Amino acid sequence: MVSLFRPNIESLEPYIPGEQPRPGQRLIKLNTNENPYGPSPKVRAAVRRAVANSDLRLYPPPNSGQLIARASRIYHLPPNMILAGNGSDELLAMLFRAALDHTKRVAWAFPTYSLYDTLAAAQQARVIRVPYPRDWTLPVPGLIKARANLTVICNPNSPSATFTPIRVLRELAACLQPRLVAIDEAYVDFAESNALGMVRDFPNLVVLRTLSKSFSMAGARIGLAFANPRVIRGLLTVKDSYNLSRLDIAAACGALDDLPWSKRNIARIRATRDHTITALRKFGFEVPDSAANFILMRIPAKQTGEKAKTESVLSRAVPTRDLAAATIRARFRDSSMQSAAAALRRHGVLVRFFSTPELRDSLRITVGTPAQMSLFLRILGAIVG
Amino acid sequence: MVSLFRPNIESLEPYIPGEQPRPGQRLIKLNTNENPYGPSPKVRAAVRRAVANSDLRLYPPPNSGQLIARASRIYHLPPNMILAGNGSDELLAMLFRAALDHTKRVAWAFPTYSLYDTLAAAQQARVIRVPYPRDWTLPVPGLIKARANLTVICNPNSPSATFTPIRVLRELAACLQPRLVAIDEAYVDFAESNALGMVRDFPNLVVLRTLSKSFSMAGARIGLAFANPRVIRGLLTVKDSYNLSRLDIAAACGALDDLPWSKRNIARIRATRDHTITALRKFGFEVPDSAANFILMRIPAKQTGEKAKTESVLSRAVPTRDLAAATIRARFRDSSMQSAAAALRRHGVLVRFFSTPELRDSLRITVGTPAQMSLFLRILGAIVG
Repeated sequence: MVSLFRPNIESLEPYIPGEQPRPGQRLIKLNTNENPYGPSPKVRAAVRRAVANSDLRLYPPPNSGQLIARASRIYHLPPNMILAGNGSDELLAMLFRAALDHTKRVAWAFPTYSLYDTLAAAQQARVIRVPYPRDWTLPVPGLIKARANLTVICNPNSPSATFTPIRVLRELAACLQPRLVAIDEAYVDFAESNALGMVRDFPNLVVLRTLSKSFSMAGARIGLAFANPRVIRGLLTVKDSYNLSRLDIAAACGALDDLPWSKRNIARIRATRDHTITALRKFGFEVPDSAANFILMRIPAKQTGEKAKTESVLSRAVPTRDLAAATIRARFRDSSMQSAAAALRRHGVLVRFFSTPELRDSLRITVGTPAQMSLFLRILGAIVG
Repeated sequence: MVSLFRPNIESLEPYIPGEQPRPGQRLIKLNTNENPYGPSPKVRAAVRRAVANSDLRLYPPPNSGQLIARASRIYHLPPNMILAGNGSDELLAMLFRAALDHTKRVAWAFPTYSLYDTLAAAQQARVIRVPYPRDWTLPVPGLIKARANLTVICNPNSPSATFTPIRVLRELAACLQPRLVAIDEAYVDFAESNALGMVRDFPNLVVLRTLSKSFSMAGARIGLAFANPRVIRGLLTVKDSYNLSRLDIAAACGALDDLPWSKRNIARIRATRDHTITALRKFGFEVPDSAANFILMRIPAKQTGEKAKTESVLSRAVPTRDLAAATIRARFRDSSMQSAAAALRRHGVLVRFFSTPELRDSLRITVGTPAQMSLFLRILGAIVG
């Protein structure tokens, strides 16, 4: 076949998003980290105003001025340090496009958000994946050694939900200067702290946020990048001329005008999350602490001398937790959670299963409402017996 | 300075869109080819429905399913030959990203839509610009000789508003097979025919449309690409995962559900356009026939023996039209329309002036309402004396 495209494009794997039910299909979505609570009523009002006049016939402001002005007030950074994107996905894409080509290297700790792979492949960049250890501590030495043109840290990380302390990120950004470091903070509003304060100190830093999760606006595609003005200028050169629609800008302004709404929902989600983690650990699953609106549950790792222990599980005195873990391991002999995901789906609950070798022992569960999580735990209880 | 980005990014010129008035600023916008009539009431209803429930918390369908289904019915092509983008600008960007890198060539006839330059530079591709002759006939031999990996034809062309017959495009697409040919039909709904029928015949062809102009939806950012399924698959590999928001998809569906609305506005704009062209020619401007919702007006080219003629303009019998042309040339001695654009702006009318050598003798005028065009012609009359 004649090549229509540039090399590798036709063999590229596009990013595969989690399943989205068809209209009318009733499923509980715990698979793509959406917020179970709707957006603020101010979003609705702002969008209605935006369509009430006939301004939709006019192009939007190319750099989403009103939205940037609001973000500037809320996040205490000047407008020339802020850029709005069509979700943080578009901002990530701009960053990869501006920073990388076939001569450049990009690094991240993995497993992490798999969109990075797609974006790096589109740039024909060399990817250095530094593995996380089982406890999800950020592999700082490996990332420093990689000396990549761009280093991306997802914090809290997906799918682990774990959080790397800001002082560690400061050390990393300092060591990697002047190379670009991006901190993808899509989930940070569910954590205790964040890296936004680093932006003034590190001219090589980009912090990315999204309104998809904590502001319940996944459907409106709004992301924000914070960085040194020089980095923002570089990103602007690869930005689509009018990247946000008038409707999305209006929706985003409505959301940012109601921080209490978002904060209340975050508090509810965190409470449900912590309750769910406790329950999953009681089942015997290995669950790292979560700083996000989702939870990674794993089949517990085998201990030394494990085999002997499991075999005599009923006859010997084993601590409750070890017993539960052994039961889970016995249930999932093939070390894959795929069957559990399929069983949950049959009961109307979507969760995220990743088929990669590193993650097939895991499920990523979005934190829904308390009622949704009770149902999820009940079904799961039946599955693990 | 240390390079933060890949080569050339920081020296890239981002695309400069036409001026957008600030909120509350009262200007007549004849500068960015927006539709003077608002979008269909069905757009408003669809957007209101989309924010009435709390679905905005959920990601949109990644490939804008409902919108593609409507486009498939209207344009009589199967869904796997259609792709929706964030304006046709995003679709152009996807095409350039999929087709081009530093080893590839891209060609177009120029002057044309200057975004192509920005997109090609971002891909580090080699650009072959084949000049249009003064009468704006597509320079087919030059484009064929270029044998570029991607050839882009803007038809109707911007800023000339001229139309290349479809049989010429068929010849070109046939000669260039299997190399990609893109026909940017942003303005084609204002013309007499279009290239959509070519898509089934040429596996190397991409036709691009937008809802910005004929559907009055510039603010909603909706574009459509039509091509062979293999080309669509290639473009999908470089598409952002969720490129259209739920609000924009709803707005686009509302617009496509009301074709009579769009058709009526197109008819009104065409009538106003033809009336305006007649008036501008009477003034003595050179105005190519327009197949779009805008008009290019130029200072007439000098004829042989011109100088002698103009000098004796009052004393000799010269046909009216030559006299008018000579008057315009005398008024714009520096062969630049910049002063006219500035004067119009002082009177509250924005038009588009391009400072490039090939276009500084021209203004591009968007067709507004009859009242707006009368005002424009009155001010222009005063300027040219």
